[in-house]
Amino acid sequence: MDPSSRRRFLQTGAAAGASILAGRQKAFGLDTPGKLGIPLGPYGERSPYEKAVRWRRESRTPETGSSFAPLQDSVGTLTPSALHYERHHAGIPTIDPAKHRLVIHGLVDRPLTLTMADIRRLPSVTRTLVLECGGNSGGEWQPRTGADVQRSYGLVSCSEWTGVPLSLVLAEVGVRRGASWVIAEGADACRMERSIPLAKAMDDILLAYGQNGEALRPAQGYPLRLIIPGWEGNTNVKWLHSLKLTDQAYMARDETAKYSDLMPDGKARIFTYQMEAKSVITFPSGGQTLPARGLYELTGLAWSGRGRITRVEITIDGGRSWTAARLHEPRQPIAFTRFRLPFRFDGRDAVIASRAVDESGYVQPTREELIAVRGMNSIYHFNGIKFWKVQADGTVTNVDA
Amino acid sequence: MDPSSRRRFLQTGAAAGASILAGRQKAFGLDTPGKLGIPLGPYGERSPYEKAVRWRRESRTPETGSSFAPLQDSVGTLTPSALHYERHHAGIPTIDPAKHRLVIHGLVDRPLTLTMADIRRLPSVTRTLVLECGGNSGGEWQPRTGADVQRSYGLVSCSEWTGVPLSLVLAEVGVRRGASWVIAEGADACRMERSIPLAKAMDDILLAYGQNGEALRPAQGYPLRLIIPGWEGNTNVKWLHSLKLTDQAYMARDETAKYSDLMPDGKARIFTYQMEAKSVITFPSGGQTLPARGLYELTGLAWSGRGRITRVEITIDGGRSWTAARLHEPRQPIAFTRFRLPFRFDGRDAVIASRAVDESGYVQPTREELIAVRGMNSIYHFNGIKFWKVQADGTVTNVDA
Repeated sequence: MDPSSRRRFLQTGAAAGASILAGRQKAFGLDTPGKLGIPLGPYGERSPYEKAVRWRRESRTPETGSSFAPLQDSVGTLTPSALHYERHHAGIPTIDPAKHRLVIHGLVDRPLTLTMADIRRLPSVTRTLVLECGGNSGGEWQPRTGADVQRSYGLVSCSEWTGVPLSLVLAEVGVRRGASWVIAEGADACRMERSIPLAKAMDDILLAYGQNGEALRPAQGYPLRLIIPGWEGNTNVKWLHSLKLTDQAYMARDETAKYSDLMPDGKARIFTYQMEAKSVITFPSGGQTLPARGLYELTGLAWSGRGRITRVEITIDGGRSWTAARLHEPRQPIAFTRFRLPFRFDGRDAVIASRAVDESGYVQPTREELIAVRGMNSIYHFNGIKFWKVQADGTVTNVDA
Repeated sequence: MDPSSRRRFLQTGAAAGASILAGRQKAFGLDTPGKLGIPLGPYGERSPYEKAVRWRRESRTPETGSSFAPLQDSVGTLTPSALHYERHHAGIPTIDPAKHRLVIHGLVDRPLTLTMADIRRLPSVTRTLVLECGGNSGGEWQPRTGADVQRSYGLVSCSEWTGVPLSLVLAEVGVRRGASWVIAEGADACRMERSIPLAKAMDDILLAYGQNGEALRPAQGYPLRLIIPGWEGNTNVKWLHSLKLTDQAYMARDETAKYSDLMPDGKARIFTYQMEAKSVITFPSGGQTLPARGLYELTGLAWSGRGRITRVEITIDGGRSWTAARLHEPRQPIAFTRFRLPFRFDGRDAVIASRAVDESGYVQPTREELIAVRGMNSIYHFNGIKFWKVQADGTVTNVDA
């Protein structure tokens, strides 16, 4: 932490800090377990005391749906791969990487089939990037949302991805004149497809095989997926099997019947790929309880599909006044930026929220500002400011639940 | 990747790239599994096809020893928590975080006992940092080392750590005049202890509870450990239970009988905390095989306890000529920096190595340069340049094994 915020903490905490740190001076004593612990092992699982898991609605078709990351338990800027949110349309295929192939065809000079071994020989890059479902926090539109940050905002996660620039492979196959779209298809049972403009494919898309230092997890597309920086999760096709160059979009099910935004006039916006700046407080958040008055660290996550977060402001009085939070460095573009601010709970109601600004100058809007432009017909691309209420008894609720 | 290196790849790869990418034009065809995959789930394990595990020597006392991270399978800049190297002295204790306490006592005005809940209320920071055992690659001194990069260099890992600055807690307890050391003690059965100069404790040490977005894994000190940026792993006391302020070092077993460096004149250096700049090629490395001639991506990891890596150079001719590798950005201080360089295997022997330079200007030395200064009595702090031999048949061996 920078010295200025440390000074601020200790000053404002001079009285309340006592409730954290004082009153705990006890006789010094060590218990001695006096027995050897668990041996060294090949693979280290988490502690049996750690219980955080993804949440999903009960369903008779659990192969299709979403599971939500436990953001209330998150620390730092990464999501553990085992807890990364899921959105599947036909379950998770079990793919042998030795048999998997990526086919690149259509309007190209030299159609190509690549094995995973081929792909791993190519020049690679590593980027820390957010993935967010286009429908994340969609319940906030009505609002008819979850009680806690996991159920209401958990369709977003951040990982370190490693893979090969798609542009490099497209240069090798030779894109033909007239090609303007890339149709990406997954190897799941429904062959999930999305249409991607060629310009983006030539820019910064990755053919990703690595996540957080190892191979992708099956639920994130093992052994190969698209990573499309800043674009809604659905376009980041998992279990990537085919890329077809075409002169038009496919108007696939997942870009027409779904993942389009119904506007107030009854028309729908389609191909709204980019995710805007957004933030949410993860502590204190709905369902949590502050055990006593005193100082806490208020914290949360901000991100933007447009680039770096430049500022996050916090209100504790329902939006009347705002204070800049401390931001984790380095702030990487299109990655989670953890924000932190000391928060003194004095036993009175507090309505808290965060507001993110990104390097394009975009300011996270209020829910009312969003609705004024886009109406309430859509379930996608909600990025309004999110309020939680800290009640006098220390319980925290979702204002909009 | 930056445009210049992409151009370089495609130019040098114009002929050899054909062996990667051409010759694979086949009739286009998709198999159709036509069945639903695995349902959404609460916790996502890795693919059954992924087999990388930590390695350790067989032992009748598996509670003490080391396990080595599978660097040959690493991608990007992070080590999965489940595969982070281990070095334990009395096994891994199973600690209930609700019962764990950190006691801060000795030469302080206000001795303090903190619960984990107390610690999590304090202002936190997140840093991506390498941990390396002081004995990593110790077999290279003789040399009497492992056949592959895991067994010879696997006592190093990199994680995103989250915790509270120790300096903040020391300010709260009030360090008394005359205090100059902090004695850190773990809650493992052997109560592992290390002596840490107060100046470092007031600088950048963390009381860490988070690793890679979640709680520490038990093998990395759950629920609380020291993280001491740039210092040998052993000082980063796990399962941290007690910090005692003293006016002298303790001369504990793990800083006298172990973790000291026996010099040529028979005297030992002690308290050699800082890890110097170091690097190793992870592909191609000992035990791997290049299946055919052609272009590959040579890659590996560099790090320094002194700060950022500024340059990594690669030789493929046994050290006669060196070429700058492409470095992953952002380069974070005291973190893994992934380096990459196209490597053309033309079916002739190649002796390859990497050489790291850090922002202090320190240049990774040769083994001979190290021995000239420090002799061959020590097993600690080996950071010499590491050579692998790519043989004409594509097999890769450890030159020093």
